[in-house]
Amino acid sequence: MKILKKEYSIALLVLVFFLGIHQAISAQATPTSKPLAGVFPTGNKITNNNFTGTAYLQSLIEADSLNAISVGNVTFTPGARSKWHLHPAGQILLVTDGVGYYQERGQPKKILRKGDVVKCPPNTPHWHGASATEGFVQVAITSREKGETVWMEAVTDAEYHQ
Amino acid sequence: MKILKKEYSIALLVLVFFLGIHQAISAQATPTSKPLAGVFPTGNKITNNNFTGTAYLQSLIEADSLNAISVGNVTFTPGARSKWHLHPAGQILLVTDGVGYYQERGQPKKILRKGDVVKCPPNTPHWHGASATEGFVQVAITSREKGETVWMEAVTDAEYHQ
Repeated sequence: MKILKKEYSIALLVLVFFLGIHQAISAQATPTSKPLAGVFPTGNKITNNNFTGTAYLQSLIEADSLNAISVGNVTFTPGARSKWHLHPAGQILLVTDGVGYYQERGQPKKILRKGDVVKCPPNTPHWHGASATEGFVQVAITSREKGETVWMEAVTDAEYHQ
Repeated sequence: MKILKKEYSIALLVLVFFLGIHQAISAQATPTSKPLAGVFPTGNKITNNNFTGTAYLQSLIEADSLNAISVGNVTFTPGARSKWHLHPAGQILLVTDGVGYYQERGQPKKILRKGDVVKCPPNTPHWHGASATEGFVQVAITSREKGETVWMEAVTDAEYHQ
């Protein structure tokens, strides 16, 4: 009976040992999850009517009379996106984290990932946002020299999921 | 003797189990070290005469006739820096990794770290580069609408270490 108890103990220890090893392997294979934040601060929740879902904006550089370029860090939660809009002098997007979508009117939707860059031509209706399942962080570089952004209609669910 | 062997086995299993747990905890606590590379590719070694030390450039966006903004990812190894120079329409720097220096003529040298941004006014002589001990990665956003960068003299060691 004493030996039987020890055999149970051994079986239990072997089980716990393999659970420990399993945890070690899992911890190495899965990088520590970090908040989706890119390089720059997340900033404040966008409360205007130009976005669908929850997105955040941190202004990094304001345009001025000597340098008309503004730079902002935009964080989209999964499913969030801008409305259709255009920039009179165009826009450049730098993707710093997550997975997102970018689409120009009449063109297929593109999938964007960390390290991707986009040059959106002047006066070209487009939208951008997070993928349905993962958030998305972009640095938006916008020249204001030919006027402000023109906002249009919302991106429908059919357009978004296309 | 049979029981003694089992007791040794148990002791061994307990030891290996705790080693497994230790490995699991270590793997979670120490993030995988990553090369100093920011978000975008490092690109190619800069071979022109406008830099002191070793620096790399990856062009991300080229200026064109519709959008005169260029965007480049610049990686400086420790001690590397640009020469003094100016941009006719100014420049914006976004720091994505490392520790670097930025100085405008007649102003104190600033220390830059990941997440910092700089707006350099038009026609203002300045230089930027890595700290003496740590590399530095910046995204440089340059408007070309008023002409190309004007390059000047090298930053002396005295200026650099000031």
